Amino acid sequence: MVEVDYVVCGDYLLTMVEGDEVITNGAVAVKGTRILSTGPYEEIIERFIPEKVIGGSGKVVLPGLINTHTHAAMVYFRGIADDLPLKEWLEKYIWPAESKWLSTGFCADAVTLACVEMLKSGVTTYNDMYFFQDGAAGVTKEIGMRAVLGVGVLDFPSVSAKNTEEYLANAEVFLDKWKGDGLITPCVAPHAPYTCGPETFKKARTLAEKYDVPLHTHLAETRYEVDTIRERFGKTPVGYLDEIGFLDSRLVAAHCVWVDDKDIGILSRRGVGVSHCVESNLKLASGISPVARMLREGVKVTFGTDGAASNNDLDIFTEMSIAARLHKAIAGDPTVLDARQTLAMATRVGAEVLGLGSSVGTLAPGKAADIVVADLKKPHLTPFYDIYSLIVYSMRASDVDTVIVDGKILVQNRKTLTADEGAVMEKAWWWKNRIAPG
Amino acid sequence: MVEVDYVVCGDYLLTMVEGDEVITNGAVAVKGTRILSTGPYEEIIERFIPEKVIGGSGKVVLPGLINTHTHAAMVYFRGIADDLPLKEWLEKYIWPAESKWLSTGFCADAVTLACVEMLKSGVTTYNDMYFFQDGAAGVTKEIGMRAVLGVGVLDFPSVSAKNTEEYLANAEVFLDKWKGDGLITPCVAPHAPYTCGPETFKKARTLAEKYDVPLHTHLAETRYEVDTIRERFGKTPVGYLDEIGFLDSRLVAAHCVWVDDKDIGILSRRGVGVSHCVESNLKLASGISPVARMLREGVKVTFGTDGAASNNDLDIFTEMSIAARLHKAIAGDPTVLDARQTLAMATRVGAEVLGLGSSVGTLAPGKAADIVVADLKKPHLTPFYDIYSLIVYSMRASDVDTVIVDGKILVQNRKTLTADEGAVMEKAWWWKNRIAPG
Repeated sequence: MVEVDYVVCGDYLLTMVEGDEVITNGAVAVKGTRILSTGPYEEIIERFIPEKVIGGSGKVVLPGLINTHTHAAMVYFRGIADDLPLKEWLEKYIWPAESKWLSTGFCADAVTLACVEMLKSGVTTYNDMYFFQDGAAGVTKEIGMRAVLGVGVLDFPSVSAKNTEEYLANAEVFLDKWKGDGLITPCVAPHAPYTCGPETFKKARTLAEKYDVPLHTHLAETRYEVDTIRERFGKTPVGYLDEIGFLDSRLVAAHCVWVDDKDIGILSRRGVGVSHCVESNLKLASGISPVARMLREGVKVTFGTDGAASNNDLDIFTEMSIAARLHKAIAGDPTVLDARQTLAMATRVGAEVLGLGSSVGTLAPGKAADIVVADLKKPHLTPFYDIYSLIVYSMRASDVDTVIVDGKILVQNRKTLTADEGAVMEKAWWWKNRIAPG
Repeated sequence: MVEVDYVVCGDYLLTMVEGDEVITNGAVAVKGTRILSTGPYEEIIERFIPEKVIGGSGKVVLPGLINTHTHAAMVYFRGIADDLPLKEWLEKYIWPAESKWLSTGFCADAVTLACVEMLKSGVTTYNDMYFFQDGAAGVTKEIGMRAVLGVGVLDFPSVSAKNTEEYLANAEVFLDKWKGDGLITPCVAPHAPYTCGPETFKKARTLAEKYDVPLHTHLAETRYEVDTIRERFGKTPVGYLDEIGFLDSRLVAAHCVWVDDKDIGILSRRGVGVSHCVESNLKLASGISPVARMLREGVKVTFGTDGAASNNDLDIFTEMSIAARLHKAIAGDPTVLDARQTLAMATRVGAEVLGLGSSVGTLAPGKAADIVVADLKKPHLTPFYDIYSLIVYSMRASDVDTVIVDGKILVQNRKTLTADEGAVMEKAWWWKNRIAPG
């Protein structure tokens, strides 16, 4: 008999380990930051003495969800400008707001709200691209959430740097400071093929390799980008980045909406992780990514919310739910993105593409205890015939009850334990009233 | 000073009356089943003495949502068979389950659950097509919800009738019994152009006209239907039903996925109400309805969930959220289905197409008090810049706090007052365990 901190249990345990079946009346034994064992509750409770039992009847236990592309701090711009063409949205609203307001303080405050929203919706790890990431890193760690934080790099000035060299220098300071942290993985994030030149992409890669950290970029998001890159380099964005040696499994590429069969072959061969941001792509009318085709060709497709200014939330349940439906209609085939595969994309595959596959994404002995417990006793979840289908097609973020990251309980009974939700919301309104009074 | 039962108030009041602006710190005075007045809280409270104040700070008040196409009783088949081709889904799972289990008792029990799910997600009126509607009518009225209940008519036998004449006779008995009820509007629902012949459609119309009630059918849902009807009648499904004189504003036509420009012109001229079921259409890979084009041509498009076996929920918030995003990408235009228009489709226009435009769908003096109060103090709703955008793109069913139908409070603090939620869920599991043991 081994003493453990928690046994987390429920009517169903989904380990999301490839090939594992659903464990009915399943349990996870957690000691410190780690999972010691998973299995039927009756067996776990015979082997371990828990200080505390979490979950129980009427619950389902699954790995924390992974949001593979966001700009967390933009949560303060939620719905600042909707139902507008992309160019007007960016140039008249988003860029002016960013250049006026961004700072370490703004980003720290905004990211706190984003972390609370994500945690309460079952996201335990997020992959970010933004500026002033030191603020984000500090508050994310304080709340206890896991993140890959990419320092944005551009070839033109912004509030965070005056030129490419300064962006890269900022990134290196951040890598140096956060490399090796248990929760925060620093990352280099050249913004996009239309905002960074080839030399910038190469320098970003050199820096990421020096520190052995991930890379993160936007890729093939709009038709405009494809046209621009074709004009400049005579290739598709994917073809161009491949030519300059930027593509491999270290990279998470957000969007990949405008990719042709050749591009898909490249993404597959290079092992690039794709973050599919269906809600943002639809809402900005960017287009519809050929996800079913990418999956068929072995591309690692995962889910990202993008920022709350274009989404307008940070909810991976709705990303799963929309993507799993939409791609059936686009492919004309209701068997694609089945519920189990969809949930794997939001957990195991998400962790893999962030380079965190050995530590999170599934519930297995030795892995970090990043665990979600959700309620099943709700009218909209009653009855059901398949637990994967229920989670993907019927469950909502608001059904998440308890969230554990690195063995620490961050949300319990839908209350955030490591942040004062009321104060976080008040601060958001304080900033909003400065950004757009009245 | 007039004594009233309730004043319902919030930071924002959206009357959804065409042309009305948002009322900040707004209120609705309710006496009996009716709305007496709407306006700024300060003015309302000077004119009316309420027995009770509902809502308040941190809330938004809006009309109840209208679900214009569902098969409520199918909630007991939620997720019974997912990720399958339509033919296999119908023939191997849905039809056998229906023929084995449907009865007045099954439908009454199942519809109770459906009403609870819908009410808690802010739906106050639903438009149904199914069998054994007497059971549905009884429990819907008991719970206090509003519904248009269409008695299904087919040209082949099922558990509910042995031939067309018997279906029509069943329908007439139901019309006769429920015509004139304050909450339940009976309706005739010939199933679809591929399951009912032209004579059946004509008889259904004659019956609906005799009792002055709505008509409800499935129309142009799949490519298969278009091919079948073209082969049989040499026309599109819309063209064919128009030719036989079936189309006018009495009809709600569900789906309308496969409609061409000529069909859209017909639907517009005839004033047919269209129920757009985006989640069901995507999930069954039926296709994507040209909603932006229909709206441009003046077709009255509204939202339906379809049954929970194909959706897998009865949530109009997610229908709005997905449709408002999807059609931007399909049209290549982020300005279509803006948030305000989308919410109008789910409220005012929904009521209009059901023939209930004079009694529900907006908050205005003389109308029935069908009112939703939702919470705004949630991290995922913080901050925001536009209340319509917040409701369509960020709000969830779970943010609904209080629901009033016909002046009666049915849901308060997210608890159903007129049904025992625990017992309703237990009964659902009792049936599920008979349908699919284990």
